[in-house]
Amino acid sequence: MINLLLINGPNLNLLGQREPSLYGVQTLETIETELYKKAEKAGIKLETFQSNSEGSLVDQIQKAIGEIDAIMINAGAYTHTSVALRDALLSSEIPYVELHLSNTFSRESFRHKSLLADRAVGVITGFGPMSYQLAFDGILSFLKHQDRK
Amino acid sequence: MINLLLINGPNLNLLGQREPSLYGVQTLETIETELYKKAEKAGIKLETFQSNSEGSLVDQIQKAIGEIDAIMINAGAYTHTSVALRDALLSSEIPYVELHLSNTFSRESFRHKSLLADRAVGVITGFGPMSYQLAFDGILSFLKHQDRK
Amino acid sequence: MINLLLINGPNLNLLGQREPSLYGVQTLETIETELYKKAEKAGIKLETFQSNSEGSLVDQIQKAIGEIDAIMINAGAYTHTSVALRDALLSSEIPYVELHLSNTFSRESFRHKSLLADRAVGVITGFGPMSYQLAFDGILSFLKHQDRK
Amino acid sequence: MINLLLINGPNLNLLGQREPSLYGVQTLETIETELYKKAEKAGIKLETFQSNSEGSLVDQIQKAIGEIDAIMINAGAYTHTSVALRDALLSSEIPYVELHLSNTFSRESFRHKSLLADRAVGVITGFGPMSYQLAFDGILSFLKHQDRK
Amino acid sequence: MINLLLINGPNLNLLGQREPSLYGVQTLETIETELYKKAEKAGIKLETFQSNSEGSLVDQIQKAIGEIDAIMINAGAYTHTSVALRDALLSSEIPYVELHLSNTFSRESFRHKSLLADRAVGVITGFGPMSYQLAFDGILSFLKHQDRK
Amino acid sequence: MINLLLINGPNLNLLGQREPSLYGVQTLETIETELYKKAEKAGIKLETFQSNSEGSLVDQIQKAIGEIDAIMINAGAYTHTSVALRDALLSSEIPYVELHLSNTFSRESFRHKSLLADRAVGVITGFGPMSYQLAFDGILSFLKHQDRK
Amino acid sequence: MINLLLINGPNLNLLGQREPSLYGVQTLETIETELYKKAEKAGIKLETFQSNSEGSLVDQIQKAIGEIDAIMINAGAYTHTSVALRDALLSSEIPYVELHLSNTFSRESFRHKSLLADRAVGVITGFGPMSYQLAFDGILSFLKHQDRK
Amino acid sequence: MINLLLINGPNLNLLGQREPSLYGVQTLETIETELYKKAEKAGIKLETFQSNSEGSLVDQIQKAIGEIDAIMINAGAYTHTSVALRDALLSSEIPYVELHLSNTFSRESFRHKSLLADRAVGVITGFGPMSYQLAFDGILSFLKHQDRK
Amino acid sequence: MINLLLINGPNLNLLGQREPSLYGVQTLETIETELYKKAEKAGIKLETFQSNSEGSLVDQIQKAIGEIDAIMINAGAYTHTSVALRDALLSSEIPYVELHLSNTFSRESFRHKSLLADRAVGVITGFGPMSYQLAFDGILSFLKHQDRK
Amino acid sequence: MINLLLINGPNLNLLGQREPSLYGVQTLETIETELYKKAEKAGIKLETFQSNSEGSLVDQIQKAIGEIDAIMINAGAYTHTSVALRDALLSSEIPYVELHLSNTFSRESFRHKSLLADRAVGVITGFGPMSYQLAFDGILSFLKHQDRK
Amino acid sequence: MINLLLINGPNLNLLGQREPSLYGVQTLETIETELYKKAEKAGIKLETFQSNSEGSLVDQIQKAIGEIDAIMINAGAYTHTSVALRDALLSSEIPYVELHLSNTFSRESFRHKSLLADRAVGVITGFGPMSYQLAFDGILSFLKHQDRK
Amino acid sequence: MINLLLINGPNLNLLGQREPSLYGVQTLETIETELYKKAEKAGIKLETFQSNSEGSLVDQIQKAIGEIDAIMINAGAYTHTSVALRDALLSSEIPYVELHLSNTFSRESFRHKSLLADRAVGVITGFGPMSYQLAFDGILSFLKHQDRK
Repeated sequence: MINLLLINGPNLNLLGQREPSLYGVQTLETIETELYKKAEKAGIKLETFQSNSEGSLVDQIQKAIGEIDAIMINAGAYTHTSVALRDALLSSEIPYVELHLSNTFSRESFRHKSLLADRAVGVITGFGPMSYQLAFDGILSFLKHQDRK
Repeated sequence: MINLLLINGPNLNLLGQREPSLYGVQTLETIETELYKKAEKAGIKLETFQSNSEGSLVDQIQKAIGEIDAIMINAGAYTHTSVALRDALLSSEIPYVELHLSNTFSRESFRHKSLLADRAVGVITGFGPMSYQLAFDGILSFLKHQDRK
Repeated sequence: MINLLLINGPNLNLLGQREPSLYGVQTLETIETELYKKAEKAGIKLETFQSNSEGSLVDQIQKAIGEIDAIMINAGAYTHTSVALRDALLSSEIPYVELHLSNTFSRESFRHKSLLADRAVGVITGFGPMSYQLAFDGILSFLKHQDRK
Repeated sequence: MINLLLINGPNLNLLGQREPSLYGVQTLETIETELYKKAEKAGIKLETFQSNSEGSLVDQIQKAIGEIDAIMINAGAYTHTSVALRDALLSSEIPYVELHLSNTFSRESFRHKSLLADRAVGVITGFGPMSYQLAFDGILSFLKHQDRK
Repeated sequence: MINLLLINGPNLNLLGQREPSLYGVQTLETIETELYKKAEKAGIKLETFQSNSEGSLVDQIQKAIGEIDAIMINAGAYTHTSVALRDALLSSEIPYVELHLSNTFSRESFRHKSLLADRAVGVITGFGPMSYQLAFDGILSFLKHQDRK
Repeated sequence: MINLLLINGPNLNLLGQREPSLYGVQTLETIETELYKKAEKAGIKLETFQSNSEGSLVDQIQKAIGEIDAIMINAGAYTHTSVALRDALLSSEIPYVELHLSNTFSRESFRHKSLLADRAVGVITGFGPMSYQLAFDGILSFLKHQDRK
Repeated sequence: MINLLLINGPNLNLLGQREPSLYGVQTLETIETELYKKAEKAGIKLETFQSNSEGSLVDQIQKAIGEIDAIMINAGAYTHTSVALRDALLSSEIPYVELHLSNTFSRESFRHKSLLADRAVGVITGFGPMSYQLAFDGILSFLKHQDRK
Repeated sequence: MINLLLINGPNLNLLGQREPSLYGVQTLETIETELYKKAEKAGIKLETFQSNSEGSLVDQIQKAIGEIDAIMINAGAYTHTSVALRDALLSSEIPYVELHLSNTFSRESFRHKSLLADRAVGVITGFGPMSYQLAFDGILSFLKHQDRK
Repeated sequence: MINLLLINGPNLNLLGQREPSLYGVQTLETIETELYKKAEKAGIKLETFQSNSEGSLVDQIQKAIGEIDAIMINAGAYTHTSVALRDALLSSEIPYVELHLSNTFSRESFRHKSLLADRAVGVITGFGPMSYQLAFDGILSFLKHQDRK
Repeated sequence: MINLLLINGPNLNLLGQREPSLYGVQTLETIETELYKKAEKAGIKLETFQSNSEGSLVDQIQKAIGEIDAIMINAGAYTHTSVALRDALLSSEIPYVELHLSNTFSRESFRHKSLLADRAVGVITGFGPMSYQLAFDGILSFLKHQDRK
Repeated sequence: MINLLLINGPNLNLLGQREPSLYGVQTLETIETELYKKAEKAGIKLETFQSNSEGSLVDQIQKAIGEIDAIMINAGAYTHTSVALRDALLSSEIPYVELHLSNTFSRESFRHKSLLADRAVGVITGFGPMSYQLAFDGILSFLKHQDRK
Repeated sequence: MINLLLINGPNLNLLGQREPSLYGVQTLETIETELYKKAEKAGIKLETFQSNSEGSLVDQIQKAIGEIDAIMINAGAYTHTSVALRDALLSSEIPYVELHLSNTFSRESFRHKSLLADRAVGVITGFGPMSYQLAFDGILSFLKHQDRK
């Protein structure tokens, strides 16, 4: 059985409450609930985690070692500043997908550079809550192809 | 009825024949066939176009005006060099998704900058042929949400 | 009644104990006490918070939503590195003033760039403990003018 | 008795007449009048000077030597281009506060660099006409602390 | 009746006397005379002003407020260094055309950046004295189109 | 008799149909028609050419050798990316004017650099369809002055 | 039997006709004729191709797959701008030599960077028509050494 | 008696478990145990601390004030991103040695810049677990020389 | 008879009064007096001019045309910011020496770039008041050698 | 038996004689003597070499091929400028440690970049003469671990 | 009779002994021997010189003045760092070819910039020992064409 | 008695023989002879040294310690590349003047940066052989003023 972990970084717990023009009106809870359903249907075990703290996110990725087959991560602001998160992901040797709700390339220039992207399986950005569903499908497809090798 | 256009840029006609470690073993034909099936199932009209010529790609985007509801574009090398393609897409006012087979962020630094990304609905990169399927699902989801507004 | 929040970032709990030539001899406690007095005199409710942890600062800003009318923030080192703090402040939609004890422009070049300044109401830098009083007067003046509109 | 000089640079004589969304509706005269009152109340002698000419501003700062205890300067556009103004201020050895009506960090990138800031006592930016009052309070506080040493 | 102002910046009073290979053999007087004739024929009131002083140029632009419908400006060296001139033009809210006798793009690299161009109606560069005539025709055309809206 | 060639680059065939706020409402056909009239009146032979293909534009410039006295070129997006176009123009040794409908300096930063400008007779930018008329007058004036030498 | 392909990019069809001080007086035809003779003497099959169109050059390289043992390419202006050409050469997995008539390092700075050089067998620049002969000898020597391995 | 503190930053708790080619096979526990032995033999009191959280590392350095004579710090990823850690170390006025297991100069370019190095006593990088022993010897030697002054 | 002009820029009228560690204790008057003596002895006519205004300096250089054989200029702060001064000097076609009292290369980085140096006969920097004497000797030597040609 | 070579670059022969605040009071002779003792005790053969000439240092490294097991190098100024030294070390395929007496990161910015560091076993900087002892221990530890593999 | 000089810079005396994957297996002696044969056959006098010392290379180039008609130079590491070598070559006014065994463009970025290339007749890079033969043919061809003029 | 040392770097031994338009027609011998005369007249002991080797120049500066009161140095190409020379001069603690025959600011951009200038007494550039005389006068004036303190 495949075990997936969804990680959300700082301020994503506010989803649906503030700045709807940028991030949409769905709450993180709704997004996670829909993803749990999708996972159940696909016979996959899903865990979710959100934190505003860089250290807690690193801790969580470390805990995933040996438990989790792949990670979906929306690292929010830490995408652009956290070498620690990058190191945690690389040390864990768990494949991961980077995802974003908004199109980071149409925002401030310091959001154009990701410290996670070059070692990710793939990157999905700009589709709102749908980004999570696409990340789910994308990482699953990746795991299946890897399996066959 | 929704009309989608899939555009593939230079050298993507070689898919499946060369550099499989970078681009996978599926041909462009196979990828397009699978996407046609997916479109048919969803009741959507799909057109596809590939060219190695920047000018022909611009021509094709211009022809899409008034005919096509959304574009999926893997502009290949022109992603990083063609302001003309950007202008064609913006002039057409057709929403588009940028997609890539390989993870452009883990390749040469001149591939880290896209001239199309900041005005795209979203960007999908790194999932191999699956990137096309995710782009299809992503743009469809975008069109439906836009509709409801 | 106006509710103000004063946030102090990393190492500001050491104020008055170390490097007096750079930061002065007053402790953070003294500074806060003087500000409480000033607030009381002005009939304003003041809360204060200090943490060395980026995540806790983000948490605190999120808690301020719906409770606080304006924030005075001396984010210390995080001023120059934390996109997460910026996102928290912007998501909260609470007006804020950025302040510094020392003149950041006369220090290391990495302190010349603030990730918070461009979206702040205003910035006050270099007046030592007096910076806090000026920030208080400045944000109050801002709130009153906003009110009248 | 303390002697203060307020210097306003190019185009600040237009205040209150043009671009009110950027600079507010108060004229420079009103701002100066309020500051004169504040000075009188505090038993301080205030002089004011405005010019559109870099050379005249340099002349005025030179005249202040031996007469003036501190300068408040809103150098406007010359903040970002005038090494001559910087040299005049440094040669005068008079402490000065840099102030701005608008938040220069949220405007064009060439306004993010000040040639005066690193040697100023402090910098105040973004509070509209209130910036002048804060600068007044800030420089006075500085002079008093300096005195006690 | 339309009122136009032609402003010439530093060293343009030397036109026709020095460096003819760069700036041509016509004097500024001749250029202005031809433009006066052209204006008269078109029933337009033209004023001209030249100064080597940045401050005087700013003063003149301020005087134009409420009097002048459009400005033609060859700011010479100040094109590349004067934020004060830019601010004066923007504060005046008078539409302006930037013009140059020589082709600034084929000269020293510090002449490739204009501080006025991005907010101008248009820019004309390289046609020698003819640049003035083209600027005249261009700004007139602009005013007429604006009128019709 | 003077022979002029007007070259329009990619997406300029869409003029008047899309993005009117950026490029105006006149079609390329209207612009060319007006220019033909102007040419006829002046006793000048005018040819026009538009293509979305960099290669075809190069071909056309090569064909102009020995036939054409001067070129007016709005190279659109290729202005900023095509060394090939630059080489064709330089190899042809035909004098040319660079022109743009919109003010390229107020748009994306990659449009601030032209690969053609430094070797052009002159550059005209920002006057909408009037830019073509000014370019016509400018290049004609250039040819006449050259003649007299 | 060894099959070689010589590719010439934009404007090289003008060789010998324009700018002789930069490119010499020999036509491309003469250069190709001499190279055909040299190939015949060496018992090698040579094909040549020239185009001003980036897309056609990509097409031609794709056609070479499985037919051609090595490519000599003078990509002209596309050397510095075409990622598509680079991708075509890399996808083809055919070894290639980059060559130039003029010394690109003594020309405009944008000609100092080649998008093809780092993956070429070698680069030859500055010897005029002799560059073609040296490229021929160089690539042949490369093929022979590769053979022996 | 000398009191030393060894601080390890994010992901160093994973040592010996993941990426052995980069970081070696020894666990952090083993490294610390060996260092405790070395300290005991030298009659020195050693404390150790590891955390994935930037804030906790700052807290720990603050606690060291007045207790600890020198710090050995392997700040891991925070070496390159944490101004807060730098400020904590400088505020504490405790001498410190920066150390790394791997050679940071042969890794990603963002690891070439340390925010701690310029104010450290010295830096040791690349010797694997031996880096800790060298840091111990180096800081001890520093303390002894300082003593003698 | 040779006519020399000595030009001093902004703040040099303060010489000998402020910042003696940087600029020495001699006043500008003393320096000029010594230079007048030197000129008289050498049978050379010397004029001197100082202004804090960029425009007045430009005016003065223009007046020198046809009157002055060579200029010695200490442009002070304008050395680093004034394209207008550069243009005036170049337009005048009068040979000039650039000189500085202090060593500009050991000061702020914005003083390392001179807008006048590349077209000067020579540059003398760092010798205090002696710089003026060396400039005098240097420009005289230049004029004599030029004469003999 | 292990053979070590210690190489000291330009100006290190002056050690202990000049700039003691930067480099300490020990002479190079003393440092080498202490290292010889340490080597003898450890049963290791040590050679030392110092030169001010880049070429002689290259010569010496070439002579070490086949004779020396590891190099300790304090290349002084050549650390930052000599590609030749880098090439000699890489060509020799002898493992080496880079060391410095002073902390190069707290000095001029051109000393922050080493041309040797990325290929060194490790780097030790800032411990004064102790740096040599640490380098000795570090390289020995490296050789022993390598041995065991 | 033509006199040629072949100069080899630092570490090229190691050719064939170390790093064969980068530089091949032929020794410098073999390469020189083959070139002597080629020269003899062509009736040309060849001299060769190798040194690891920048100064000796400069000396040798100076000695070539008046003796040598053209230089072939593989300056190795000094290609990228030696302005002195550039000056020697330019002062000598002897035409020269720059050559390299390996493809410098596919190596470290500091090898992409040559201080010799822009003033060379031509550059040949990447063909291994064959580069020397091509350089020989290239410079000879250059000398013959120059002769005929 | 004052002891002066004149140091000339690489290629300056060619003076008067090559590139007279750049460096003049006087030989180094003539220049030194004139300077010896000047020194004798002033009662000063002068030594001169020239070398093409960076190491020898460093050696010579080291020998000057305790013997020489001031150095005049024209380091030629090493001005822009030699940190070793800088270190030798700083270690020697001998005051020095940097001088150049040509105006380095009007030559290649890599000659605009000097590694010696910021720590020199002063810099003289562009006066041809006269630069040596001015350097002599300048350093003497410096020594006399230093004496009086």
